[in-house]
Amino acid sequence: MGHIGKQTIKFDKSPIITHTYSSVGPKEGKGPMKEHFHHIYEDELMGQKSWEKGEAQMIKHTITSLLTAADKKAKEIDYILGGDLQNQINATHLGVKDFNRPFFGLYAACSTMGEAMGLGAILVGTGLANCVIAGSTSHYATAERQFRFPLEYGGQRTMTQQWTVTGSGYVLIEPTGTGPKIESITTGKIVDFNIKDASNMGAAMAPAAVDTIIAHLRDTNQKPSDYDAIITGDLGHCGLSLALELAQHSEIDLTPNMHDCGAMMFDSETQGTHSGASGCGCSASLFSSYWYKELKAKNLKKILLVPTGALMSQSSAQQGENILGIAHAVSISSI
Amino acid sequence: MGHIGKQTIKFDKSPIITHTYSSVGPKEGKGPMKEHFHHIYEDELMGQKSWEKGEAQMIKHTITSLLTAADKKAKEIDYILGGDLQNQINATHLGVKDFNRPFFGLYAACSTMGEAMGLGAILVGTGLANCVIAGSTSHYATAERQFRFPLEYGGQRTMTQQWTVTGSGYVLIEPTGTGPKIESITTGKIVDFNIKDASNMGAAMAPAAVDTIIAHLRDTNQKPSDYDAIITGDLGHCGLSLALELAQHSEIDLTPNMHDCGAMMFDSETQGTHSGASGCGCSASLFSSYWYKELKAKNLKKILLVPTGALMSQSSAQQGENILGIAHAVSISSI
Repeated sequence: MGHIGKQTIKFDKSPIITHTYSSVGPKEGKGPMKEHFHHIYEDELMGQKSWEKGEAQMIKHTITSLLTAADKKAKEIDYILGGDLQNQINATHLGVKDFNRPFFGLYAACSTMGEAMGLGAILVGTGLANCVIAGSTSHYATAERQFRFPLEYGGQRTMTQQWTVTGSGYVLIEPTGTGPKIESITTGKIVDFNIKDASNMGAAMAPAAVDTIIAHLRDTNQKPSDYDAIITGDLGHCGLSLALELAQHSEIDLTPNMHDCGAMMFDSETQGTHSGASGCGCSASLFSSYWYKELKAKNLKKILLVPTGALMSQSSAQQGENILGIAHAVSISSI
Repeated sequence: MGHIGKQTIKFDKSPIITHTYSSVGPKEGKGPMKEHFHHIYEDELMGQKSWEKGEAQMIKHTITSLLTAADKKAKEIDYILGGDLQNQINATHLGVKDFNRPFFGLYAACSTMGEAMGLGAILVGTGLANCVIAGSTSHYATAERQFRFPLEYGGQRTMTQQWTVTGSGYVLIEPTGTGPKIESITTGKIVDFNIKDASNMGAAMAPAAVDTIIAHLRDTNQKPSDYDAIITGDLGHCGLSLALELAQHSEIDLTPNMHDCGAMMFDSETQGTHSGASGCGCSASLFSSYWYKELKAKNLKKILLVPTGALMSQSSAQQGENILGIAHAVSISSI
């Protein structure tokens, strides 16, 4: 085990993703991936009085169900790692508090699933922990009113805009057991591509995705075809095209096996989601459902999961700062 | 090296804090700890057009100066870990982006310094990294307008209220070299003490501080007197009294050697700071200056640094949620 290349950690004894659980909202539950999720809520409030409380409830449900699926008690968990898009990652704090476990709070915008799985893999892969839960979450309604407009305002959406996923995905990482293995992780750098359009976050994330993918391939001495699928988090349709083009500039052809969770989650034609999906919960819920099942069924031998994040806040936008990008890669093998 | 007890990781080969750097604002630079800081800004804007940009500039300056002090180039750093109180930890993203290093974004409110040093120590202590920078930051003016009122409003402050520190502290962690050693870390759980008063965050943090200190002493089979100083982050005067009382209920007497960075930073009598200081930058800047120097000079053999965080957001307060607490402990020895 050790640091290879410049940004990558390779595990001698690969941590195993023994279980996953995904919960999503009603719109996600009507999209093309609907058959793969573990739980679909009927409304965005999840039985709570506010969307913010609903998001916390979704996290609590996701982790509770993950523990049930794994036949584990909360006290058997060494660490929980996670985050969300609410200011001060408040949904995650409220969602995990009752499990009463040591907690690492993370913020990497929509790339948080990559950061959580990466740090979780380090804790297990080094033998420092025996059982770690890692995940991330987002909620359409809490994100809209925090980052954009009150939903009641009914603002027009540009065609480059994405729809924040209401969803949560958590994984259980252990040193032994059955399941896909985390072979290596590549931690991303913050990339500034001079993007200021908050309605085109795919453009801010695409260069970060390509930067991390290239770093990973370089550090591990691999080529794109060594992966059955290279899966970005939430570039959306516009961001995905941009990423493919940017990779081409570095003479790397990602076209044959690149996928994007943001482009998969909704049917943009019938669901009105324009450039696709975004949010911490996008790659988290789709990895924990569809991609994990494909790995478990050995339909895929090896994937590179690359959750992508657009780093901005309401005040950074108001003050004219660029939207920065970051992406964290996790290499996962089913064999 | 390994997990001992329930929440603690003990390092066989202790990571070394080889250098530190602290930057603070003008009010901190007039307080009782003024002689210890590396850099004192003359105004809260740090030469920028907004306080938010100023906070980012302070982070950039702190890390740049840390690299200079260590005679290192940015490219020699394997990872940067850090966070701040701005929504979406935006100050840290802007402050670290130009160093172009793999970055782990963290949010643990004012306990972020403990989380950053803990994860940094894991990366170095396991041999996965050779050189890590960890730190955290806060800014009075950005926090006031984000969490409370516009400064121009001139709101009255209750006597239990604390003054957010304008300050940043970053440390360099390496496997070899000279300096105090990180012997073990104890990762905190989220503690809900049913506190709702956002003007008394010390009360929300005190139970978390005591919970983590007791967990650390239990896991490492030590007593308070094994430490020359047990140093909480920012309980403030009110929170510190509460913590001592809570510990007494568990039959642990912390009175002889407990200190609180929040109670040390300002002279409440002359500086009008009521219950004391708070903010991510409080324990970060005081550890990186005063406490580090005391360890280097061997005036202290062993300390337990316990940065404390109050987990809340504007919307959680508006929706009547409790203010949760968390504290992460780092045991540091100079011998």
